[in-house]
Amino acid sequence: MSGILPSGDGHAAVCGGGLIGTSLALAIAGAGGKVRVHDRDAQVRADLRDVIAAAGRTGVAVLDEWSEAAAGASLVVAAVPPPAVPGVIAAGSAVAQPDALLIDVAGVKASVVEALRAKVESDGDVMSRFVGSHPMAGSERSGPRAADAALFTAATWILTPTTETSDLSLAVASDLVRDLGARVLVLSPEEHDAIVGLVSHLPQLVASVLADVAAEAVGSERDAVMAVAGPGFRDTTRIAASDTDLWLDIIAGNRASVAAALSAFRDRLEEVLAAIDADDAERLGAILRRAGDARRRLVPKGVDEATRHLVVPLRDRPGEIARITGALGSAGINIEDLAMRHATAADRGSLVLRVRETAAGRALDALDASGVEGAVVEREHADGGHGA
Amino acid sequence: MSGILPSGDGHAAVCGGGLIGTSLALAIAGAGGKVRVHDRDAQVRADLRDVIAAAGRTGVAVLDEWSEAAAGASLVVAAVPPPAVPGVIAAGSAVAQPDALLIDVAGVKASVVEALRAKVESDGDVMSRFVGSHPMAGSERSGPRAADAALFTAATWILTPTTETSDLSLAVASDLVRDLGARVLVLSPEEHDAIVGLVSHLPQLVASVLADVAAEAVGSERDAVMAVAGPGFRDTTRIAASDTDLWLDIIAGNRASVAAALSAFRDRLEEVLAAIDADDAERLGAILRRAGDARRRLVPKGVDEATRHLVVPLRDRPGEIARITGALGSAGINIEDLAMRHATAADRGSLVLRVRETAAGRALDALDASGVEGAVVEREHADGGHGA
Repeated sequence: MSGILPSGDGHAAVCGGGLIGTSLALAIAGAGGKVRVHDRDAQVRADLRDVIAAAGRTGVAVLDEWSEAAAGASLVVAAVPPPAVPGVIAAGSAVAQPDALLIDVAGVKASVVEALRAKVESDGDVMSRFVGSHPMAGSERSGPRAADAALFTAATWILTPTTETSDLSLAVASDLVRDLGARVLVLSPEEHDAIVGLVSHLPQLVASVLADVAAEAVGSERDAVMAVAGPGFRDTTRIAASDTDLWLDIIAGNRASVAAALSAFRDRLEEVLAAIDADDAERLGAILRRAGDARRRLVPKGVDEATRHLVVPLRDRPGEIARITGALGSAGINIEDLAMRHATAADRGSLVLRVRETAAGRALDALDASGVEGAVVEREHADGGHGA
Repeated sequence: MSGILPSGDGHAAVCGGGLIGTSLALAIAGAGGKVRVHDRDAQVRADLRDVIAAAGRTGVAVLDEWSEAAAGASLVVAAVPPPAVPGVIAAGSAVAQPDALLIDVAGVKASVVEALRAKVESDGDVMSRFVGSHPMAGSERSGPRAADAALFTAATWILTPTTETSDLSLAVASDLVRDLGARVLVLSPEEHDAIVGLVSHLPQLVASVLADVAAEAVGSERDAVMAVAGPGFRDTTRIAASDTDLWLDIIAGNRASVAAALSAFRDRLEEVLAAIDADDAERLGAILRRAGDARRRLVPKGVDEATRHLVVPLRDRPGEIARITGALGSAGINIEDLAMRHATAADRGSLVLRVRETAAGRALDALDASGVEGAVVEREHADGGHGA
């Protein structure tokens, strides 16, 4: 296989001008590679041309036909929804260099592999050069205008080789991912799907069911519900407002894993319900404590270094947050995360800032010195607050 | 009944030096009332004395005995956990003024009324003067040192009169709540409990089950899960890390409503599972769409005025957030809410700021003028993002 970064004798062909496809095109070009990108939607192609021109990326060309974009490519990327991946890979590999690396970036993997295998049945060579992948990067925005060449920096990029994938293909794919600044994580397609089923697709469905049940049962008491619904309800149901069609596609592509995750969830929920019906606080407490431990273990405070939360009471006036964040910025303290916690939907509560543990003391001093009163370092276990 | 605010011939007696009790004592004193506060824990009483001294509130006395604190009071407040409310109200009303208003602030209501009624069975007068209440105010912090005299400002304060509550008691309680700057919402104890069961207690249990199931099923793939778990998982499971004992008490005090909410949730979950098993995208889509609509309806963008989200790409360096929030503060634009959205657990994505809709244009201009690039007003429907 030819080198992709920096530019060898080939180029990268990217099909799909969405957030991931466009960001990938910009990132490859930014690293010195040549890129030809295609989208079947003429409006998206027009947007792509604008975005690429605005980014000053002369190494990226936008092509009207996928076959033109892929012709002679040393890397073929299908940045399209899962059902479209096999067609894009098959058409691309047919005109690309014979040893081109073939990858996709879809959020479900086993069903894509299966469909691709069916599509290219007589061509084992395609399967040996195909490396399924899933970059864990994205944002609430979509489309080419949301693209960011730095989208993959420090992100985890999952590669899902099959038994048919050649070692060379996996090695080249790994190099590509690392060249784009991301971390490689290798999982089988099935492992990948089981995990995203549990930590992405299941929470999505649960959030939807929660919002649905609450809405139906509250009926006309909307004002009361609005008053009572605290941060817990807002947090647990936030993703219920996501794009339905996108999620239907995702769930359809990962049906078996989603059904398994949902069944496991339902069974555990039945245990909780039985404990409550039986007024068995010991059993319920054991489940809730285990869950709390699990949450703290699964979602660490920081990846490389321990962090702490600073809780700073807020006054409701313009400039208050700037004063707080400004004090930390001036002291050279990086804010790793931040959020506002409200006493009620209408009222401001406090600003919660995550800083490195080693900087927490300096942060308090800096706030104190700039007249911000009442800041505290949150106790270690208080990961989530409850407004009661 | 004597007037409580400003100080009449009586005083307010508050039992419980937690966040709510202490904040209430400071708020009443701040509005000119006399307050005697008691906590059965000597350490809490010592903390209370420090907090009150630090606040310069000479109108608040800390008493070692509840009977001393309540003697001659015109307002008796039980700011204690639900099981302790009947004893505190009964003991307080026995020594308070004969027409004293009696209130509690517990997060569950019907079981408290029932227990109080059993406790004071022969004394219908106590029931006529008792007004259950639940201020929708609080924070992730607890104890007297977290207290804030402004905690109730603009908060909703639910009053839950029974058929035995006199009109006069309800009127005096409403005046008190309004005098403390909060909004009154009147619900029956049962309505209150059904609503908190759905929008507070159910989400808590669901978040716990989600974290528990994910942890168990992922087994040794922790690194992979950490990489894959995006904002959706973090949001939906955040409250699973809350204090277990606190939640066991809350659920025990609202068992019937919690069980009903959990059953309704389970039934709807079965519908979703059946739709997925049957590969019925139409049925699943209908549920997800309805849920998305429900979430958007239940959690409004703003209470009094429409708001919009600004999404501002972030660079990972100290002072970046201060620059953004400072630009808005200088332009006199109030930030109603803010949060960071991450591309991955390790990587910064963007800062999301909620501002009044009428200020959104000015906010973009202000950011632009101070060299903050790439800010956009988020599309109306994109309430929650998904990192994929």
